[in-house]
Amino acid sequence: MDTGNTAWILTSASLVLLMTPGLALFYGGMVRAKSVLNMMMMSFGALALIPVLWVLYGYSIAFGDDVGGGLLGDPTEFFGLKGLMTDDPEAALPAMAFVGFQAVFAIITVALISGAIADRAKFGSWMVFAGLWATIVYFPIAHWVFDFTLTGEDGVVTHTGGWIANNLKAIDFAGGTAVHINAGAAALALALVLGTRRGFGRDAMRPHNLTLVMIGAGLLWFGWFGFNAGSALAANNTASVVWVNTLVATAAATLGWLLLEKLRDGHSTSLGAASGVVAGLVAITPSCSAVSPIGAIIIGLLAGVLCALAVGLKYKLGYDDSLDVVGVHLVGGLWGTIAIGFLADPDAPAGVESLFFGGSVDQLWRQVVGALAVLVVSFVATYIIGTIIQKTMGFRIAEEDEVTGIDQVVHAESGYDFASLGSSGATAPLGGQARAEARNIEGSRA
Amino acid sequence: MDTGNTAWILTSASLVLLMTPGLALFYGGMVRAKSVLNMMMMSFGALALIPVLWVLYGYSIAFGDDVGGGLLGDPTEFFGLKGLMTDDPEAALPAMAFVGFQAVFAIITVALISGAIADRAKFGSWMVFAGLWATIVYFPIAHWVFDFTLTGEDGVVTHTGGWIANNLKAIDFAGGTAVHINAGAAALALALVLGTRRGFGRDAMRPHNLTLVMIGAGLLWFGWFGFNAGSALAANNTASVVWVNTLVATAAATLGWLLLEKLRDGHSTSLGAASGVVAGLVAITPSCSAVSPIGAIIIGLLAGVLCALAVGLKYKLGYDDSLDVVGVHLVGGLWGTIAIGFLADPDAPAGVESLFFGGSVDQLWRQVVGALAVLVVSFVATYIIGTIIQKTMGFRIAEEDEVTGIDQVVHAESGYDFASLGSSGATAPLGGQARAEARNIEGSRA
Amino acid sequence: MDTGNTAWILTSASLVLLMTPGLALFYGGMVRAKSVLNMMMMSFGALALIPVLWVLYGYSIAFGDDVGGGLLGDPTEFFGLKGLMTDDPEAALPAMAFVGFQAVFAIITVALISGAIADRAKFGSWMVFAGLWATIVYFPIAHWVFDFTLTGEDGVVTHTGGWIANNLKAIDFAGGTAVHINAGAAALALALVLGTRRGFGRDAMRPHNLTLVMIGAGLLWFGWFGFNAGSALAANNTASVVWVNTLVATAAATLGWLLLEKLRDGHSTSLGAASGVVAGLVAITPSCSAVSPIGAIIIGLLAGVLCALAVGLKYKLGYDDSLDVVGVHLVGGLWGTIAIGFLADPDAPAGVESLFFGGSVDQLWRQVVGALAVLVVSFVATYIIGTIIQKTMGFRIAEEDEVTGIDQVVHAESGYDFASLGSSGATAPLGGQARAEARNIEGSRA
Repeated sequence: MDTGNTAWILTSASLVLLMTPGLALFYGGMVRAKSVLNMMMMSFGALALIPVLWVLYGYSIAFGDDVGGGLLGDPTEFFGLKGLMTDDPEAALPAMAFVGFQAVFAIITVALISGAIADRAKFGSWMVFAGLWATIVYFPIAHWVFDFTLTGEDGVVTHTGGWIANNLKAIDFAGGTAVHINAGAAALALALVLGTRRGFGRDAMRPHNLTLVMIGAGLLWFGWFGFNAGSALAANNTASVVWVNTLVATAAATLGWLLLEKLRDGHSTSLGAASGVVAGLVAITPSCSAVSPIGAIIIGLLAGVLCALAVGLKYKLGYDDSLDVVGVHLVGGLWGTIAIGFLADPDAPAGVESLFFGGSVDQLWRQVVGALAVLVVSFVATYIIGTIIQKTMGFRIAEEDEVTGIDQVVHAESGYDFASLGSSGATAPLGGQARAEARNIEGSRA
Repeated sequence: MDTGNTAWILTSASLVLLMTPGLALFYGGMVRAKSVLNMMMMSFGALALIPVLWVLYGYSIAFGDDVGGGLLGDPTEFFGLKGLMTDDPEAALPAMAFVGFQAVFAIITVALISGAIADRAKFGSWMVFAGLWATIVYFPIAHWVFDFTLTGEDGVVTHTGGWIANNLKAIDFAGGTAVHINAGAAALALALVLGTRRGFGRDAMRPHNLTLVMIGAGLLWFGWFGFNAGSALAANNTASVVWVNTLVATAAATLGWLLLEKLRDGHSTSLGAASGVVAGLVAITPSCSAVSPIGAIIIGLLAGVLCALAVGLKYKLGYDDSLDVVGVHLVGGLWGTIAIGFLADPDAPAGVESLFFGGSVDQLWRQVVGALAVLVVSFVATYIIGTIIQKTMGFRIAEEDEVTGIDQVVHAESGYDFASLGSSGATAPLGGQARAEARNIEGSRA
Repeated sequence: MDTGNTAWILTSASLVLLMTPGLALFYGGMVRAKSVLNMMMMSFGALALIPVLWVLYGYSIAFGDDVGGGLLGDPTEFFGLKGLMTDDPEAALPAMAFVGFQAVFAIITVALISGAIADRAKFGSWMVFAGLWATIVYFPIAHWVFDFTLTGEDGVVTHTGGWIANNLKAIDFAGGTAVHINAGAAALALALVLGTRRGFGRDAMRPHNLTLVMIGAGLLWFGWFGFNAGSALAANNTASVVWVNTLVATAAATLGWLLLEKLRDGHSTSLGAASGVVAGLVAITPSCSAVSPIGAIIIGLLAGVLCALAVGLKYKLGYDDSLDVVGVHLVGGLWGTIAIGFLADPDAPAGVESLFFGGSVDQLWRQVVGALAVLVVSFVATYIIGTIIQKTMGFRIAEEDEVTGIDQVVHAESGYDFASLGSSGATAPLGGQARAEARNIEGSRA
């Protein structure tokens, strides 16, 4: 067992755990002040529920032996994580480090979807959806995509990954399909099931707190190094190349989004910067091991531009993907997955040729098929799950409750209360702080 | 020397350092807007003072050779950390990595107490209390509880832990007694010494900024992986099992708190989610190496329910534990410590049997005795220290200053000033951002 | 290749990346509410641009072979990071881990400067400045200061650092000169080029959100462990000593700043605590490997006091260094760099003698010369770059736009919009949360 690799995976798992609170801030800042808590609660609800399911049967469905013709792993094999606490000195990594690292992927994928249904979903229904969706959609798709070879207690290979990784041989290093296309397609389905918010396409629904959005973007970027570079499952050269690609693609996407805004609107916004960060991170997720840093710059720049254009589609097409999960995660995930077919560099750690680097369309079609398979399955399954919940327990709150605000109605809370400071949010006009500063200013005139 | 273990401990120490700013946010968001800075300053005051004391004599009291019949370590042995900079290739870990990792435990333990005395403590008195409490209570109790074997420069064992770890053989993997029961008991004592806030039990004192509370909860969870999994002092199988248990117990506790709220009050709150996160983290802290992930789910679920019930006690019993340090840290710490006696699984890394797993009451009574010893000593000592400060320099601010707000009176500052944005916190009704969005909306109608 | 060292450097690089969003919060909270987004955008702009330049030619200028008499590295040698993806099992560290770790230093150094020009710089001009400054000032100065020996693919030493490290033999462990003196001198130059804000020295310009400032300070401290202890480029004893010194110097500086405030003004502020944290971190950056923990306490305490005094200078001297980049980074960086000449302890990892520890003035003058060289070059070059931008495209916004607020004018956004909660920032007087609490309170009376 290698302590350096173990240290890196435990660190990476911690980083990825932080992404979900980071997402809660990123999403929470974007909605109106009267909805911020509900928005954050959908992420915290995923944090509360998914690890329990993962321990019980989720890990086993994702990484157990094939059953059902390879559509899922055997849910009983590692039920309750049985047998995985044993210290196996022969293993490359403690089994539980891998279990923990993969658990946090499941959490964030579920939480990502919530951005499409801001301000209008019952919390209890969201929790039911989260549990069903993880069980029916995420755990099996993770089984298809991830291609880690696992060895059990006795050194025997117990699992060698799913059909997308092993048969189709599509490349998805850290979850562009399993996480981002998956969550993005589910977001589109759920936005359709729940319908548009009251006032969508008519009222300006401005972000209520852009500082939260930017804290969230910063934490997401930070955590994403664990997501991508941790997916090497070792602290090695691959992880290091992936780290640099994750840095530079994200930077380039931010630059791309800001430039597009400047050219199109005359000004660059902080919402654009935060969105560009996420767009770049999404697009480099599947491709980070397959391209050079120059390739990463190209993927990032185009991700910023494409996603900045894509987020306007919802107004044209009329689906209320409130916080642009489709525009950023589905579009960015598709671009990053397919870009491998054009930009994969054989000198990069994945060692794969692509259309522009000495190869044929071979890798490109594999990428397209993998991406579409996940997209279609996720969209259809999510549409069905969402519709059943809507028809049975109800998914959407009443329209008058949207006016009052979902935080008050569903959680009986309000995000902020500055009343004790007076109406301006400031205290007496010349408190001590102002006096001290005034004194400094006076001193400078003496 | 193993670089992987060193990397993990330095990472973990950094994670635990972040917990105290995280706590400042968690606590700061819960008080009224006029008190947020004082609340955060009690944590930052601990960050400023405790590391200096730790370097001077704290580490030596906690991890020096027994003096005073084992009640504390020799304060002169490592005074100023002398001798610990030497590079010893034979050591499992650089001495300074251990020194740093333990330093941040001392900081957070002190900071935790401050939640009980929100809105009403003089900052200077708090700083005096912090220094005295760390010296008289924390450093010696850390000496009792932690059972790390240390070897010095010449390879000789210099310290083998205190009476709770070695003689009583109670299990406290990462500080359920030394940190949480200790801080919780001290919080109760200090709440009694300072008395209730003006309006306690009459006015609703609502959290002024629940987004801060949730950022804080997120950072605490993230940092706590260092706290618990770092306590393995190695990047190994034990750390990995502990990591998973820390994840799932916290999730289960959040679920438990939210379910209890839903059943009792009809709605689940974000304050409940954030509180459930912390309750779960507290309860799994002592037990994380001794139980299986299924055991961790049980500990977490019950921690969420127990703590959610316990935080109502202050109104019934009349002590103003403002931010529920007693309800969460004392109750959660006791539950987690005692639960080892019921749920410890011999297959877990600690390898200990318990009442429900093939054992007797043997481990249970050891846990109870260890917990009670720390509880009683901490409560009594804190009550005495607090009373002396109150009688001499005064601990509590004047009642009229509570009305004005402690930030203004004690720190001459105000947490927020949104005046430059106008009274609604928004600028001109149709700024460029709204225009851009309006244009998108218009475009969709074209 | 050592996985433990690789894990630590990838972790450290991630930590340092987080510092720039942390800085955005630290700075953003300090300005008025109408300027918060522009302030944060200058940091996010650096995050978007600098990594792209770094990949293209920045790394090569900083760490390529000497050209131009050693003033810079060969920009073509590693253009586009060519050749650095190869896995070299003989290397101590993957080349890309080093590339990534150094990239994030370049980002934060650029972002630091922005604090001097709050509320008044055109965003486009800032971006042009950022690119020019990194290219002309930072990349070459990094070449002078950092003394890492790099070996290429074939095991041949390709670079052995610049003249300050190797010829002058000044000590700058983690960037006191290259980062802090450099950014501080540039900040002074830019404050002079842009001139004072409307109302400077007359109106109180109070921080609008001190909770953001404190989150920022917390994230900076957390990230700085990567900055300093990561600069050991290994997870070893040196990194561990540096970690402890970084902890305790920061604590001592915070204590020093708070004590000075208490003695001078009668109260300690949260702005002081946050500023003290940064002052301590700056001062220990160059010296963290050269002093003992007791030396770190002395450096920190004096950094806190010196910087607290220095931030008042701007009012006396009339330059509008809005957020005290000069007072904290230039003064703190000079103090920390020069303090090595007095306090370096030969038992510390750097093994250097100083005036108070058995040495002569030898190390002291080397430190002074290194510090002054960077200070002068950075100031002059920045003044020229800034002036050219001001004379050509314009750097400063119009005075009436300062009144409206730069967020609205330049970014067409507003940081906050609490309108949906009503004017007090609170909802209906007795929502469910208040009801639940009221019920608890009532219950306690039953």
